[in-house]
Order: sequence, then structure tokens, then C-alpha cells
Amino acid sequence: MKIEVICTGDEVLTGKIVNTNFSYITQKLEDFGLSVSQETTVGDDRESLLRAFLLAGERADAVIVNGGLGPTVDDLSQEIAAKAAGVELVLSQEWLKTMEAFFLRRSRAMPPNNTKQAMLPQGSEILDNPIGTACGFAVNIGKARFFFTPGVPRELRRMLEEQIIPRLMAKSGQQTAVFLKRFHSYGIGESHADALLNGVEALAPEGSVKLGFRAHYPQLETKLTARGKDMNDIRAKLAPVEAEVRKRYGNFILGEDDQTLEGVVLAELEKVKGTLTIVESFTGGQITGRIAHLPGAQNVIRRGIVARELTEICNAVRLLNVPEGITKEAAAAVARAALQETGATHALAVLIDLDTGSDRIEFAGTVCLAIATADHTAVRRSRVVGGRDWVRLGAIEMGLDCLRRALQGLPVDERIDFEKVE
Amino acid sequence: MKIEVICTGDEVLTGKIVNTNFSYITQKLEDFGLSVSQETTVGDDRESLLRAFLLAGERADAVIVNGGLGPTVDDLSQEIAAKAAGVELVLSQEWLKTMEAFFLRRSRAMPPNNTKQAMLPQGSEILDNPIGTACGFAVNIGKARFFFTPGVPRELRRMLEEQIIPRLMAKSGQQTAVFLKRFHSYGIGESHADALLNGVEALAPEGSVKLGFRAHYPQLETKLTARGKDMNDIRAKLAPVEAEVRKRYGNFILGEDDQTLEGVVLAELEKVKGTLTIVESFTGGQITGRIAHLPGAQNVIRRGIVARELTEICNAVRLLNVPEGITKEAAAAVARAALQETGATHALAVLIDLDTGSDRIEFAGTVCLAIATADHTAVRRSRVVGGRDWVRLGAIEMGLDCLRRALQGLPVDERIDFEKVE
Repeated sequence: MKIEVICTGDEVLTGKIVNTNFSYITQKLEDFGLSVSQETTVGDDRESLLRAFLLAGERADAVIVNGGLGPTVDDLSQEIAAKAAGVELVLSQEWLKTMEAFFLRRSRAMPPNNTKQAMLPQGSEILDNPIGTACGFAVNIGKARFFFTPGVPRELRRMLEEQIIPRLMAKSGQQTAVFLKRFHSYGIGESHADALLNGVEALAPEGSVKLGFRAHYPQLETKLTARGKDMNDIRAKLAPVEAEVRKRYGNFILGEDDQTLEGVVLAELEKVKGTLTIVESFTGGQITGRIAHLPGAQNVIRRGIVARELTEICNAVRLLNVPEGITKEAAAAVARAALQETGATHALAVLIDLDTGSDRIEFAGTVCLAIATADHTAVRRSRVVGGRDWVRLGAIEMGLDCLRRALQGLPVDERIDFEKVE
Repeated sequence: MKIEVICTGDEVLTGKIVNTNFSYITQKLEDFGLSVSQETTVGDDRESLLRAFLLAGERADAVIVNGGLGPTVDDLSQEIAAKAAGVELVLSQEWLKTMEAFFLRRSRAMPPNNTKQAMLPQGSEILDNPIGTACGFAVNIGKARFFFTPGVPRELRRMLEEQIIPRLMAKSGQQTAVFLKRFHSYGIGESHADALLNGVEALAPEGSVKLGFRAHYPQLETKLTARGKDMNDIRAKLAPVEAEVRKRYGNFILGEDDQTLEGVVLAELEKVKGTLTIVESFTGGQITGRIAHLPGAQNVIRRGIVARELTEICNAVRLLNVPEGITKEAAAAVARAALQETGATHALAVLIDLDTGSDRIEFAGTVCLAIATADHTAVRRSRVVGGRDWVRLGAIEMGLDCLRRALQGLPVDERIDFEKVE
């Protein structure tokens, strides 16, 4: 089945906003085993919209149109959809009532120009939008079924998942269910991961599980798209592949599905009623910044301390014997002093000895980190290369991931792909 | 002149990467007074590419194609360009030599498969790429001039600015120069700014200066695109408009052109050989995280302190009389104690009293902040609404902007559009 996407709106076409709606739509469809064959972006003008609708209607079996359903004069999707479909625009009493109820729940009168949002091409099927006034709808243009969606991201997302994907799955003749299993890791590059997981798909019958990756440095997301008759069937097919991925990645899996590294760290600390102090240098508060604002963190985060000079770091944690330089031992001493000074159950210290000179691709930094508890201190030293930003981002992730490992009783010093062996 | 953009590649089409190259291209063209009429994304397959090239060649005067110039088998742009133009693919001795020199400078031998990158449609004009091996080129397809560019963002950006925009400006018949003047502000919403600057364009002759906005909460960018015979002419035309924008925005302008808020704060502190301590609560280290990693910050950032509980904040700065709650007076006391404890010349304290309950659009927080120096303490209290993220992002920007104002001798408590009047 050929699926196309048409994005509308001057804001996207002029680059005022980056088109994240498109990447959301196409990713989501991929997760369900559906593929987009082409995307077209056009502005808010009648000629371009009509041409784009007619051309896509000739080529595709299904077309998702995003944007142009608002109440203002530059929102043209319904009007041009009607023209392209060769039908009249008619007022939908059903949607008008839905909107009136929407405003009533908010104790407001419906502004008259919202009526425009209930004007739909004759014969359209309504696609419900429970969180906005833009009416989604489906209509045939050429040989394709067109699905019209709102530009507001959360309205689009909900409509895509609840209304459009089920219709596309039915239309594609795939009566099967689809499920996406995700693993998050830090420290394994995409090509290494690809080699490491070689052959895992074959553990499921007849291509029912497909492997994919999505790299966003420093993390890597590994995706298993599984198909089956129903969820029980999918779970059975997925189980051996999942188990093998867990085995091969081992300690490198930091979370699964909707889990985040910072969320996992916070949950592990909550589990042991722990409190955490973080000491940072070049990462400048960005490690603490990943956790401290999360719901629940107010009970866990004891203190965050940032300083760029080692003497000032020692001042802040009342470490009287200032170490001579940035080493694993210095990081351990700072973490132990931080524990002492703030009374937390856990302390993470991430010290960085940065190269000098201007930023360049060979610019590196030596990360020395320590995680201290009352009876143990784990340490790690690592040289990270790739420019100032790369070193900073790598050190943030390494600090959080080593803390995750320490909390889970795993070694903190397993070799990763992003460090330079000396 | 009609300009289209075609983006190629399975990674963009499947949403593995967000298409920021397109938004960069179209924004850059807008800055030069050129407009994109349509964008098309297709995958790495011959049929889709050929169809997209031929259709755009019928509609447009100029087409920018991004991606598909690499050395691997799925890079198809040159091959399909030749087919669409009806010419042969020929080896460019010129580009082959350029690539060999490129590898020689890196003390590496050129891999044989790179030769493919020197295969160009016969009659192509080379567009130089001084930082990569992908060869840009221009060729006619249909009635349009096609410009082929690499997918690597920094290579694309340089080629667009140095090679393509001058050719598009010449082709458009605009022999004039174009200059983009930018202002950055915090605290004025886009529609307010639009009303505030009403009529400023008329201060320049015959539409030579065009006003535009780009909002990225919490900041707003105001753009003046100016045209003239040459830069002297442009400067003369721009001067009265620029002066009027500065006058109407007043203290709200936090920087111009490539300046950033954190960069301005750092520069002001460097100017007075100042040192800075920052105390944060719900912002969790993200204020410190904006400045502490910048080049030069190692001499300015004295200490960053994060804690979620007021008593712990007071512990960290040795404030013995813990205030009763989060008020302007409490923020002032914390900032003064931080100054004392760390010996910095400046201290910023940003305390936040968050609403309770689950996240929702009405979720708000009360921000109490203070900036202390040896002889003065400036304070501000503000209620920010819009959900947890909105409050956090607003408080980060407000903290930095009030520090900027204090350093520049401006009032820190001017009313902004993002706060709720109580």
C-alpha cells in the first residue's frame, strides 16, 4: 500500500517551525509496519494545495494531510479537499454540536468564526478530535483515501493513533496486530549494535519480528517491530528475540520502552529511600538538570554542586586536602566528601580534565568519576574525544549511566565505543 | 522566481532523522528575500527520485536537491540527475583531483568507491565543497536550474551560502545586496511585538526593509531583512528602522545578531572581572548549565548550587535563619549568603514555589529571584503559568535575563507577557 503525507502551512514551508509532525507521522507508521513513499510540503495557497492533493490522489492509496483545519482565513484544507474531491462543502451538524459542547465545558461561548471548522466536504467521515476544535475527516480524492489532521502536535498524535492507524491497518489488509518493543542503551555505537544483534530476527517465525535502530548520541534506541494475530501471539513470537537482545546487550541496556536513564536512576534511588548529591565541573549542572526537576525528585535530590576549578569543588564539599589533579582518586575523595558534607546516601562526582586550545574534532577530555555510598566507592576513568560538545554530552550520559550501574549492582567500568583507548 | 526543494534519503523519509536541513535551507533563502514554493521528500529509490526531479523541473525555475551524493550504492542523485537531464554520467577529472588532494591532506589513500562521487551529469557546473568529498553541482532539468547539495549539514550550509545563494540572487534578477539584522528579546510575545513594531518598516524607503519574527519560547527573534545596492546603501536604509526597534523594545533587547543571553551575561561579568554563584531549586541546574561550559566560563563561574528544599538551600549557603517560605526576601537572603559563602562578586538565587497536583496547562509556579552584589540586592517576584515545563523554562530565562539587566544597570522587574498578574 502506497502512503503519502502532505504537510501544509507557511510556517513549515518558510522554516519558522521545523517539521517534527512529519517525522512523528512517518516513524509512527513505520512502528506499525507501514511505510511512507513521499512527503510534500506546500504553503497556505489554493493552487499549490489543489495540485498537491490531485497528484497524491493519482499516485497513492492513502494520504495523510497535516494542518489547515483552523478557524482562520488561511486555513484552507477543507475547502480544497472538497474541490479536489469534486463535492460541496457542507456544514456538519454533528461537529458543530461537538464544538459547542467543547466550549461549554470550558464555560465559554463559541466564537462565530469557529463554525468554519464544521464545514466538511460532502460525504466525509469524521475523525474524532477529543482535545481540540479542529475536525479530522476522511474523504476520497482520485484513487486515494485522504485523512485530514490538525497541525497542533498533541491533537495530531492522538488522532493518528486512535483514528487513522487502525483504518490504515484495515485498508492494508493486514488483519494482524503490531507491537513495538524498544531498548535504550548507552555505550554501543549503531554499527557495533547491528553486528552484535546479527541474526536475532531469525529467532521469530517467518519475519514476524523486524529489527531497527535510532541513534541519538549518546544513546541508541533498538526497536523490535513484531506482528501477530493478537497480543498473545505477538508476545510469544517476541519472547525469544527479546531474551536474546537482553543477553547480548547485557549491562548496556539502561531502560526499555518509555523508560529514561534519569527516570531509572530516580526510581532506583526511590526504591532504597536514597538521597543523592551530584558534583559537576565542565558538565556545568546538566547532569543534575536531567533529574532534579522530575516529579518525585524533590525527595531524592539532596544537593547539586557545580564548579569549574578543583579547589572550588573542594571548598564546596569541605575537602581540606585538595588533590593535585583530576584522577580517579580525586573523584573518589570528592564524592566521599560530598556524602559527608550533605548527608546524602549516594554521591556522584564527575570531574573533567579538558584539553586546551580551540574546539576541533580531535578535542578531548578525560572524565574521572566516582559514586560513593556509606560503604563503597566505585570509580571510572575515560577519555572522550569529538569536540567540546561531544565531550560534555558524553560525560553527562556516562555519569548518569555509571550511577545507574552502581545502583543496579553492575560494574561501572565496562568499555564503551565512545572512549579512546590509551 | 519559483524555487522548490527536494530532500532525499530513507533516513528522512522514515523519520529516523528530523528534516532540519530543509528548515535551514528555506529560512536562509527567506533571509535573502527568496521563497520556497514547495518541498518534496523522497526515499533512495530511482523511480521516486526521477518522478520528483521531472515534476519539479516542469514547475520551478530553480530546485535545490539535498542528499544522495555519497559514495555508497544507495546514493543515487547524480545518476538520476543525468537521466532526468537526458545526458550521460561522466567522470570529472577536476573533482577526482580535488578528492585525492582532500585525502592526501589527511594522510590517507582515497578508497576506490569514492570515485563514484566524481561521476557527474555531462555539462554540470561544479559547486565547490571545501570540507567534504561530496561534489555539489548544477545542471538544467526541464525549465529549472537544479542545485545538488550534500546531506551533511555543515557541508550543505557552506555550499548554500557560498555557492548557491549568489547564483539564485543573480538568477532572480535582484542585483541588490541583502542583509539580515536580528534582535533577541525575552518577555514580549509575538503578537505583542507585532503590534509594538507596527509601522517601523515605513521608516525605510520603498519596502527595502522587511520585518519578521521567529518565536522559540521563551525567547523571540525579530528579523529585519534589508535590501540595497551595496552594504553602505543597506546600512543607511536600515539605520532609522534599527534605531526605532531599539527604542520601542527598550530594555527587552537581550542581544543582537549572533549574541546569546548566556553569552551576554558572561561577557558583562568578564568586563567587570566578576565571578558568579548561582543558586537554583526547581530549575535543577539548568540555569548554571547554560553558562558554565562556555569558553571563558571557567574564570567566571564560581559555584552552582542546586537543592529542591529551602532548608537544604540554606545549608548549602550557610544561611542560619531559614526563611519561612519562598518570598522575595528569602531569595535576597539566599543570594547574600551565597555571595558571602563563596566569595563571588555576584550571586543569583532563583527560588520557585511550585503548585501541587498533576501537570496541566493551568499548573503554575511563583518565581522569587534575587541578584546580590557587595552593595546592592535586586529582587523580583513573578507568577508563571502553563504547566511544569513552561514554568521551568520560563524561570531559567527570567533568571538569566534579570541577571543581564542587573549587570547592565536596568530594572529587573519590568512586566512581561508570560506572567500572570495577581
